[in-house]
Amino acid sequence: MQVRSEETRKRILDTAMRLFADKGYEVTGVAEICTVAEVSKGAFYHHFPSKQAIFLELFRDWLRQLDEGLGAALKKASTVPHGLLAMAGEMKGVFTAADGRIGLFLEFWQQARREPEIWKELNAPYLRYQDYFADIVRKGIAEGSFGPVDPSVAGQTLVALAVGIVVQGIVNPTGAAWDRVTHDAVELLISGLAAERPVSVSSRR
Amino acid sequence: MQVRSEETRKRILDTAMRLFADKGYEVTGVAEICTVAEVSKGAFYHHFPSKQAIFLELFRDWLRQLDEGLGAALKKASTVPHGLLAMAGEMKGVFTAADGRIGLFLEFWQQARREPEIWKELNAPYLRYQDYFADIVRKGIAEGSFGPVDPSVAGQTLVALAVGIVVQGIVNPTGAAWDRVTHDAVELLISGLAAERPVSVSSRR
Repeated sequence: MQVRSEETRKRILDTAMRLFADKGYEVTGVAEICTVAEVSKGAFYHHFPSKQAIFLELFRDWLRQLDEGLGAALKKASTVPHGLLAMAGEMKGVFTAADGRIGLFLEFWQQARREPEIWKELNAPYLRYQDYFADIVRKGIAEGSFGPVDPSVAGQTLVALAVGIVVQGIVNPTGAAWDRVTHDAVELLISGLAAERPVSVSSRR
Repeated sequence: MQVRSEETRKRILDTAMRLFADKGYEVTGVAEICTVAEVSKGAFYHHFPSKQAIFLELFRDWLRQLDEGLGAALKKASTVPHGLLAMAGEMKGVFTAADGRIGLFLEFWQQARREPEIWKELNAPYLRYQDYFADIVRKGIAEGSFGPVDPSVAGQTLVALAVGIVVQGIVNPTGAAWDRVTHDAVELLISGLAAERPVSVSSRR
């Protein structure tokens, strides 16, 4: 019985993910999730209090996997630049996940603008990632890989770059080799961080 | 009569923009746009064949203004690095536009995944921007501001960065001084482009 319950839960989550990604969160109702997943409303509400609860569960699950992948990539690397490139390599998994998970990404951002609870859930890890990357850059400065850059600017830049590439990868999956773009873009940024001294544009002509 | 017709057209566009940004494109209907804008359905269809036509018109209008702003910023600059920073400064207008325009941005990306016509309209300028920035980087190499970087990688990186910052700015408008983040991130990237030789991470330990 326990096994069947877990299966039902997973089927609800998978179905909801596909419907949210394909049709949109706003227009997908609990009734439709139940019909497509072939579960009763009773079974649905046994597992989840609401549509929003599924949405947040999917988001947390996505984040957990991303965290694990990035953390493992960083851990194996001998220097911070190597670590950042290994993390860029982890993005390949984001783009190639066959379960349509990536299509949810835009839905999360979009819904965050409309539902305060979702906003809080999305904003917290986002700030955490900025700090996380700022710390990595700080470590890169300490180990001598990077010049005297502002770690928090670098952290914000890395997060912005990742978000921008993911968004483009969603809208135009075949428009570029996105894992390659991620690698090359991070390499370019590493060059900027490693520069002897940051180029001061205002002081040259 | 001509004046009144122009006013009506503008009122429809403004209303649709606000509704699309606040509630979402998918759930906003022509009937609601007419009610809020206080125009008849006849007047609506006199100006626009469909809801999608308004959406695309808003997108083209947004793009036109962005193009103008970026082009003017680049033209005034004496070097490519100055030009890129001036273009970064133009982003301030994107974030501070009080008309809710920026909220439409995520809707464009989201709808592009669902409607082929919107996808084509969004993808073309996106590729154009990548080429545009690649050309600017090429000019920067020619004038001696940049090292021997790959212009198309640099173009993709600049576009990804801009998209990532705009998306973050939409979801968390007060989370950072986004115009400042844009400036600093572009400056960091310029340092990378200007580096004597790109750092080859694989060759060092």
